[in-house]
Amino acid sequence: MALLNKKFILARHPVGIIAQEDFTMQQEPTRKLKYGEVLVQNQYISLDPAMRGWMNSGTTYVKGVEIGEVMRAFGVGTILETRNPNFKKGETVEGITGVQYFAIHDGHGLVKVDASFVPLSWYLGILGMPGLTAYFGLLDKGRPMDGETVLVSAAAGMVGSLVGQIAKLKGCKVIGIAGGKEKCDYLKTELGFDAVIDYKNEIVSTKIKEYAPSGIHIYFDNVGGEILDTALLNLAIGARVVICGAISQYNNTSFIGLKNYMKIVTARGTLTGLIVFDYFSRAAEAFNDLNLWVKEGKIKYREHIVEGIEKFPETLQMLFAGKNNGKLLLKL
Amino acid sequence: MALLNKKFILARHPVGIIAQEDFTMQQEPTRKLKYGEVLVQNQYISLDPAMRGWMNSGTTYVKGVEIGEVMRAFGVGTILETRNPNFKKGETVEGITGVQYFAIHDGHGLVKVDASFVPLSWYLGILGMPGLTAYFGLLDKGRPMDGETVLVSAAAGMVGSLVGQIAKLKGCKVIGIAGGKEKCDYLKTELGFDAVIDYKNEIVSTKIKEYAPSGIHIYFDNVGGEILDTALLNLAIGARVVICGAISQYNNTSFIGLKNYMKIVTARGTLTGLIVFDYFSRAAEAFNDLNLWVKEGKIKYREHIVEGIEKFPETLQMLFAGKNNGKLLLKL
Repeated sequence: MALLNKKFILARHPVGIIAQEDFTMQQEPTRKLKYGEVLVQNQYISLDPAMRGWMNSGTTYVKGVEIGEVMRAFGVGTILETRNPNFKKGETVEGITGVQYFAIHDGHGLVKVDASFVPLSWYLGILGMPGLTAYFGLLDKGRPMDGETVLVSAAAGMVGSLVGQIAKLKGCKVIGIAGGKEKCDYLKTELGFDAVIDYKNEIVSTKIKEYAPSGIHIYFDNVGGEILDTALLNLAIGARVVICGAISQYNNTSFIGLKNYMKIVTARGTLTGLIVFDYFSRAAEAFNDLNLWVKEGKIKYREHIVEGIEKFPETLQMLFAGKNNGKLLLKL
Repeated sequence: MALLNKKFILARHPVGIIAQEDFTMQQEPTRKLKYGEVLVQNQYISLDPAMRGWMNSGTTYVKGVEIGEVMRAFGVGTILETRNPNFKKGETVEGITGVQYFAIHDGHGLVKVDASFVPLSWYLGILGMPGLTAYFGLLDKGRPMDGETVLVSAAAGMVGSLVGQIAKLKGCKVIGIAGGKEKCDYLKTELGFDAVIDYKNEIVSTKIKEYAPSGIHIYFDNVGGEILDTALLNLAIGARVVICGAISQYNNTSFIGLKNYMKIVTARGTLTGLIVFDYFSRAAEAFNDLNLWVKEGKIKYREHIVEGIEKFPETLQMLFAGKNNGKLLLKL
């Protein structure tokens, strides 16, 4: 049974901001499976800040997507056909399935997920890469202690909103940075952040000093650039700076330098980063806690779902413009 | 007995490079001691890169020197008079005694040193702040392991030359960065560095790749700026970047930003710094090892001694121009 696959391939490595022309949509019938392969029908595709990095040529923490290859993406879907003894037809899986209807996958890195207790889409969000990023980035790299002050940027984003909520559960004072009144209100009233800074309408440096007069113990950075530099000016002794992404920088052709890095030294602090792939072997720890916290109502989680694979390029642009509310997904 | 004190006071906070006019020499008789005070006759004064930071207004890791105050400096000398029961006349001590002949000191932070086994001046170098900096910066922050590759900048400087030699003792491959043929030759032939990069005559990035094809496990940074940024491009997985100073940056009015800090993240690395004051309580550990290593000939140590307090401003300028060979001291 040949199916008509619809997919987005990388047409060129972007320079600066992502353009629709960086991708080309193609259609072609699926080929026959070889031994060891499975055919996955994607149900949801995840849109993540890391995609911008994957679109560059060369290797950073993973190899970049090459011109002509299917755009890399995490997806969840159903096994339609299988020639791999580890997977059965009808099972639901999560993995790098790409921006396409149907993925032929060798099973490596493909994880079976149970969609009978939680929505399948959760495995791309709170129970997926962003959830692991927030969980291990905060708990393993940040090591929050009761009574400490945590600052998180892109706080209304998927990772940021989880980091803030987990930090609250750990007894921290949480300050979020987000853009616009709607997001800020959401963080304060819905998610229980102690303070929120609207970087579009407030002076971030002034507000950090106001809300964290004794300094920041953990700065969880999701944006890089000027906000990171500003946060460095306000570190408490022993501060941990956790770099998780640099969404403000991915699209920049010339990377903005970190001017205040000596503040890490004078604060006896540490700058470190998180590559979520390193934590896949410990995913169960995170899933147990996160699942429980959501079910107990201790953590709130929302999704922003766009329908139709054709909308992939514009939806990715929406992500980098910060226009999504919640975890951004394409539903196929 | 009133003595005529000669001292350098800070005349202004420098903008950019240190000028002779940033200091004024003054003479005045010493006053009588109050209870708890001692009078120290400085024999050697230490010239250290940290001095540039101390000359700025405001507080970084320590309070800056204020206009009209004696310039801060570490010194070693002899107790001439004492009204402090913890110190006896004739004892030799090390501490912050300032750029002056005679210091009146409350004893706080003043350490008795034994000049019968090693030259007194050593307590400003290998058995002083630079020695502690190298020892704990490398061993406690860098945590070198047998077979790892260590890159150190300002490698011919006091701290750098010790870091490289200690790293060799720990079984590491050591690459030094220094300026000029003479310094580079010294590091290779006298101190046993595995490779040396002459930043004045070679392209640092190319040479790092050549000498460390599998990347750098520890980068011990004494200079900041472009060399730091270049080193970040060549980190091995799990690299530790130890920031010890930023001598290239102290004199800059606009700090050069760190462009490649995301490489720390992709390398699963850590950037941390060293404030040597934090290790004073553990000084004995370092002294025992360093003293032994020098006596056994495992570590070589040299001093660059300039005579006469009047030469303080020009000698400090010499330090920042990188014209000294070995630990720079003023002999009074």
